[in-house]
Amino acid sequence: MSKGVTLKSEDYSRWYTDVITKAELADYGPVKGTMVIRPYGFGIWENIKEAFDKRFKETGHVNAYFPLFIPKSFLSKEAEHVEGFAKECAVVTHSRLRATSDGKGVEVDPSSKLEEEIIVRPTSETVIWAMYRKWINSYRDLPLLINQWANVVRWEMRTRLFLRTSEFLWQEGHTAHASEKEAREEALKMLEVYREVLEDVLAVPVLTGLKSESEKFAGAVDTYCIEAMMGDKKALQAGTSHYLGQNFAKAFDVKFQNENNKEEFVYATSWGVSTRLVGALIMAHGDDKGLRLPPKVAPIQVVIIPIVRRDEDGKKLMDYINPLLVKLKEQNVRVHIDDRKKISPGFKFNEWEMKGVPIRIEVGPRDMENNQVFTARRDTSEKFGLDIESASQNIVQLLEEIQNNLFQQAQQFREENTFTVDNYDDFKAKIKHGGFVRCGWDGTEETENAVKSETKATIRTIPFDENPKDLKCIYSSKQAKHEVVFAKSY
Amino acid sequence: MSKGVTLKSEDYSRWYTDVITKAELADYGPVKGTMVIRPYGFGIWENIKEAFDKRFKETGHVNAYFPLFIPKSFLSKEAEHVEGFAKECAVVTHSRLRATSDGKGVEVDPSSKLEEEIIVRPTSETVIWAMYRKWINSYRDLPLLINQWANVVRWEMRTRLFLRTSEFLWQEGHTAHASEKEAREEALKMLEVYREVLEDVLAVPVLTGLKSESEKFAGAVDTYCIEAMMGDKKALQAGTSHYLGQNFAKAFDVKFQNENNKEEFVYATSWGVSTRLVGALIMAHGDDKGLRLPPKVAPIQVVIIPIVRRDEDGKKLMDYINPLLVKLKEQNVRVHIDDRKKISPGFKFNEWEMKGVPIRIEVGPRDMENNQVFTARRDTSEKFGLDIESASQNIVQLLEEIQNNLFQQAQQFREENTFTVDNYDDFKAKIKHGGFVRCGWDGTEETENAVKSETKATIRTIPFDENPKDLKCIYSSKQAKHEVVFAKSY
Repeated sequence: MSKGVTLKSEDYSRWYTDVITKAELADYGPVKGTMVIRPYGFGIWENIKEAFDKRFKETGHVNAYFPLFIPKSFLSKEAEHVEGFAKECAVVTHSRLRATSDGKGVEVDPSSKLEEEIIVRPTSETVIWAMYRKWINSYRDLPLLINQWANVVRWEMRTRLFLRTSEFLWQEGHTAHASEKEAREEALKMLEVYREVLEDVLAVPVLTGLKSESEKFAGAVDTYCIEAMMGDKKALQAGTSHYLGQNFAKAFDVKFQNENNKEEFVYATSWGVSTRLVGALIMAHGDDKGLRLPPKVAPIQVVIIPIVRRDEDGKKLMDYINPLLVKLKEQNVRVHIDDRKKISPGFKFNEWEMKGVPIRIEVGPRDMENNQVFTARRDTSEKFGLDIESASQNIVQLLEEIQNNLFQQAQQFREENTFTVDNYDDFKAKIKHGGFVRCGWDGTEETENAVKSETKATIRTIPFDENPKDLKCIYSSKQAKHEVVFAKSY
Repeated sequence: MSKGVTLKSEDYSRWYTDVITKAELADYGPVKGTMVIRPYGFGIWENIKEAFDKRFKETGHVNAYFPLFIPKSFLSKEAEHVEGFAKECAVVTHSRLRATSDGKGVEVDPSSKLEEEIIVRPTSETVIWAMYRKWINSYRDLPLLINQWANVVRWEMRTRLFLRTSEFLWQEGHTAHASEKEAREEALKMLEVYREVLEDVLAVPVLTGLKSESEKFAGAVDTYCIEAMMGDKKALQAGTSHYLGQNFAKAFDVKFQNENNKEEFVYATSWGVSTRLVGALIMAHGDDKGLRLPPKVAPIQVVIIPIVRRDEDGKKLMDYINPLLVKLKEQNVRVHIDDRKKISPGFKFNEWEMKGVPIRIEVGPRDMENNQVFTARRDTSEKFGLDIESASQNIVQLLEEIQNNLFQQAQQFREENTFTVDNYDDFKAKIKHGGFVRCGWDGTEETENAVKSETKATIRTIPFDENPKDLKCIYSSKQAKHEVVFAKSY
């Protein structure tokens, strides 16, 4: 850990990249647009993944795995209107390499050209629905509640670690139901799972609501979303859940025999979150000293640093610390002892602050004399002594406090930067400085487009708690159809 | 579950595919060579994965994620001799699709041709070592103990579900060390983790040992392996662990400053197991009624089938079963109630037998009168009543018994089909009928090749417990260099 990071206030985007690099969360891969998720970053993702996976299973879903490769022809089935279609994706055209004639390198063997090109999945709807056609015959086969954890590829040249890379990791739920009602309930149920994990585990408050027509997923009837505010007051779409109606069932001819022996197209949903949530964590909680991790997703919740000034103190200190260590582990606290030699305590403090470990404990000879440990909270920077005997209970409680505090700080920040306006001048004045702006919208795409081109802000969501009754559209001044939240976004 | 499966004795290969299809473990994907892992098969894989992952972490390893895409040029660094190189793999050459001029389909946009072709990883050594070059500078950065769970692609036209598909899931450990000694210890440590999981979790006995020169991984100094015997007496390589020496460090120029301030190339290992282990499970334990799953990997360990003859019995039965259900869940038993209506008990029995659920419990009105539940073991087909009060303890014990019994059966089968011979005539007579044949080998590739072309058998391993001292080579009659195990294999 050589130096600190660029200040947030100075250059937010550089601050973001600095934190990722210095906290060793991720790195750039050798092929342009690709990302390596380093162990510390992956440890965070594993905790996020587990929080979702547990809830998916509790709500009756099962995991499966579908192929990476999709026949090119499937993509035209998916696209509602192929005309004007342009999709950035990785196309596989050959299946063999061979040695070059000088024997020093490799080249593509032209004789291995494929008859039909293959696409690396940008998402798995098409291949999954091709299989559902085989698996679904009767209402007895429904509902089918399948989730997949996988890598997907969308060609991106403007890389931004965790937020925009050509390959990323995600989960995609794809469910099939016998009725519209059940499918709509499923889409909302999974949105609620998303909200819960974001708020209770990642400590990131989110708005829940519907997307406007122009912002929704092309194949969906309705797209629900969770939207979070980042530290630069921009919005980040943190997850989406789609009610797909019978669109995919019709495209892939998936019918079932209902209880009255009649054939019907299946009703569907899909929903997904991705490694971009690691980016959300960084931007929602990070500060000028680096990452601040909510305890529930922190790979290390407590780091203990023995302050050894003379070699002979080392063993004594470890004996002193050990009972605390055991107790913390018994309480499932993820604790790490940093006993690296030849590295100064100051260097270690900075490193663990950068990595956002919620609680740092320092123990030196004087603490030993006083029967205490010296404790520092990453969220508030508070420092205080804790009695060694009762330290483990205090720490467990403290972790909970930090979890809550990070959520409250993020929520307060969002509230301070959320504005309600009733005219376009106020709208422009507010949106210029970022934040969420709540206002009336006449429901037309023209208004959306005009506001976007004039201010770069888009409708992030039509929140579930909207109340458009007495509102006018800020742009057209017509009666508002919806109360919406505008923001600039990632 | 319409009918049973082809008999093992009749057509082993068809039996294998039938079991996979009827137990709903996997299906063929739309692109030739690809596989869909269905929820039940994926549930097994999740349990296998968890068993390994837990042990990887306990032995100090961390997970990370490296990109799917590898620059073509990296492949020539890996290949020790590029001359004669031919690699079946998926080559990405373009990055965009567009609508066809008639607007009805999609085609590859020729203007999106890549400057350098990209390879879909067949394994990640090259991209990982390119990163290690950036991350490793000093002995303080070592050891680096990283594992990755990922999908990899090797072009395969002769598909065999779980055993040979163009895409498969695996884990690949890639570690870097400051000394040969430490790296060699690591390779052996991970082989021992593999042995433990295979034997204690999958209930599949394995031989541990070294590969011969011709069977080892091209980039390795030494390849260690675990080899298992399948139900048709063929060998299956279930996992490998390589000591790579400084080969990759030299190819990717990865040096570190040692404690004496001298630059040195890093020492390396790699090790992997894959979804082929699901195939190993099927073939090691399956019988003519389908799958037989060891409890530790079974997604469902106990299935309870209420035998409802009159509708009014339904609720009573559930009230009767419920306390047992609660107790089983408290003891972390994975239990499932099959209360599907309009499906006969006989049909359900067959289905759960096919799916290999270790214990089936039937409860009907008469069992209720007798305060018992009727229990069937999948491994032995034994059936007996259990007192409802003590059933949960008995079942937990039974699961352990079944786990052990499956291992013992497989071990006995292997012993019955392992032979020791001291001359080539006996060798040929034995190997003709399959099984493992232990004998002396002179250590030459010529002998290996001759035996292979005459009998199709290869050296599966030089077992750690070899004792070649008084042995002669079965083929050349020269003094044996090693005692080895020959077999036909997958």
